[in-house]
Amino acid sequence: MPDIVYSLEMIGIVAFAISGMMVARSKNMDPVGVFTIGFITALGGGTLRDLIMANHPVYWIKHEEQPILILAMAVVFSYWKHTERIRPSWIVFPDAIGLGTFSILGAQLALDLGHSWFIASLLGVMTGTFGGALRDTLCNEVPFIFRKDQIYASISFAGCWLYFLCQWALQSEALSLTIGLLFIVIVRMAAVRFDIRLQRDPM
Amino acid sequence: MPDIVYSLEMIGIVAFAISGMMVARSKNMDPVGVFTIGFITALGGGTLRDLIMANHPVYWIKHEEQPILILAMAVVFSYWKHTERIRPSWIVFPDAIGLGTFSILGAQLALDLGHSWFIASLLGVMTGTFGGALRDTLCNEVPFIFRKDQIYASISFAGCWLYFLCQWALQSEALSLTIGLLFIVIVRMAAVRFDIRLQRDPM
Amino acid sequence: MPDIVYSLEMIGIVAFAISGMMVARSKNMDPVGVFTIGFITALGGGTLRDLIMANHPVYWIKHEEQPILILAMAVVFSYWKHTERIRPSWIVFPDAIGLGTFSILGAQLALDLGHSWFIASLLGVMTGTFGGALRDTLCNEVPFIFRKDQIYASISFAGCWLYFLCQWALQSEALSLTIGLLFIVIVRMAAVRFDIRLQRDPM
Repeated sequence: MPDIVYSLEMIGIVAFAISGMMVARSKNMDPVGVFTIGFITALGGGTLRDLIMANHPVYWIKHEEQPILILAMAVVFSYWKHTERIRPSWIVFPDAIGLGTFSILGAQLALDLGHSWFIASLLGVMTGTFGGALRDTLCNEVPFIFRKDQIYASISFAGCWLYFLCQWALQSEALSLTIGLLFIVIVRMAAVRFDIRLQRDPM
Repeated sequence: MPDIVYSLEMIGIVAFAISGMMVARSKNMDPVGVFTIGFITALGGGTLRDLIMANHPVYWIKHEEQPILILAMAVVFSYWKHTERIRPSWIVFPDAIGLGTFSILGAQLALDLGHSWFIASLLGVMTGTFGGALRDTLCNEVPFIFRKDQIYASISFAGCWLYFLCQWALQSEALSLTIGLLFIVIVRMAAVRFDIRLQRDPM
Repeated sequence: MPDIVYSLEMIGIVAFAISGMMVARSKNMDPVGVFTIGFITALGGGTLRDLIMANHPVYWIKHEEQPILILAMAVVFSYWKHTERIRPSWIVFPDAIGLGTFSILGAQLALDLGHSWFIASLLGVMTGTFGGALRDTLCNEVPFIFRKDQIYASISFAGCWLYFLCQWALQSEALSLTIGLLFIVIVRMAAVRFDIRLQRDPM
């Protein structure tokens, strides 16, 4: 069980790091900029979560292999020409796994620390979305979370509540985690595929 | 006394949340964006204050009714047409109350934790102004606090020092709080009404 | 030894504050904006470092003379005409000292708290560069750290590792600090003078 959670977390970190590095490269940044944006995208959400919940040490300080992995990725990304072939559309699936894993694990940590469902769902959404919002702000784009043509944060929010409800109804942590995570990944993929939005007309 | 302070704080939160939601809507954000900007504007200053002073748990985690209120407001704001009639000028008074309450309460908390007057005044100003600065940065406007056509942070700073002096001279917490708060609200309203600035000419 | 470190730190703070105030004035900000940007540039990196490492109280709360100094500088900068003669090129040397001091002292603190070399070098780079990155983001410029025509963060990173290696090889804290610091200052000055970059061609 912890192994699966940890593997998913690593997939999420890699996916978020790649999404950050792709944006950084499209802005013509040098290798340091590529590493910095990748780092912030992948680890920003978890850092905010740990600071707000006073959960020290911050998780990438405890899991040193994560920033080392991101550093290695930045080197590959900056100097290996083949990575230019990565297309934005390839990122959607791992990005959805990142969103799902970070949201559910953030919410789970908040519950473990004794917070209520509502607070835990807010912290789950923050963990899942803050890194990407920072990436877009630093790269001077309108953050994803504020764009009308996408649903993103609301899927994370709904997935956290589904996880709480399953936990309460099923009494099985592993099953609830899986359901919440799958919900976020599948709905996010469907939203991108079928162009689902919260609001269609200008208000 | 605590009841009055708490009521003022709630008024400030509501006012800041409304100001954030109005900016978010003017940028055509969807309901999640409206909630996010409202949340950040209303609770950003207090979160920064609590993180810097290591005052855990962060206050909106302790007072769960505050994010719930902001969520309810975001729903109303996004789906109830009548809120479109709210004019920016209506926001000035509650926004001034928010600035006053957050500044004085931030400074008071810093004093309670044993910091000096100067540090407490800085933390008071941060608590009062950081939420609005984040709102403007995220919505791609020049933050209020940096605009030359407004005095904002300096009123908060002066109000904090007036509160300290009253506390020292009058030995009455309730009276000092009231004086500091009224000073900020009245001077801010006057500054908006009579267009008072620190500097008039380009340097 | 602590006196020299403290003196260097003050030079770094003054240099970073001046660089912030120059950018703020070029954006036509009022005195409050000048103070705010100066404060954030000079103390932002250390604040982030202390928050992430849970090293409370944050260092400018402990060293109250630092914000007071920045406040005095902001007053001089806003109202004394002669400061307009300061040229951006004059800032490069003190800015390099600031980068060097903050990076090495940030890394040293991280080692003292028991972190590994790699984590310590990341925290050193953050301490040295975050204030300037915030300054540029708030003033709507592409942050220094992301500009391709400059090497900045990589010098800080290399300097931190040189400091660790010297510490390990020489067993002398004072000597290692000096070597790491001098390396950053000299290489940074040389990079500006001879226009050294990580990458010359568009990718």
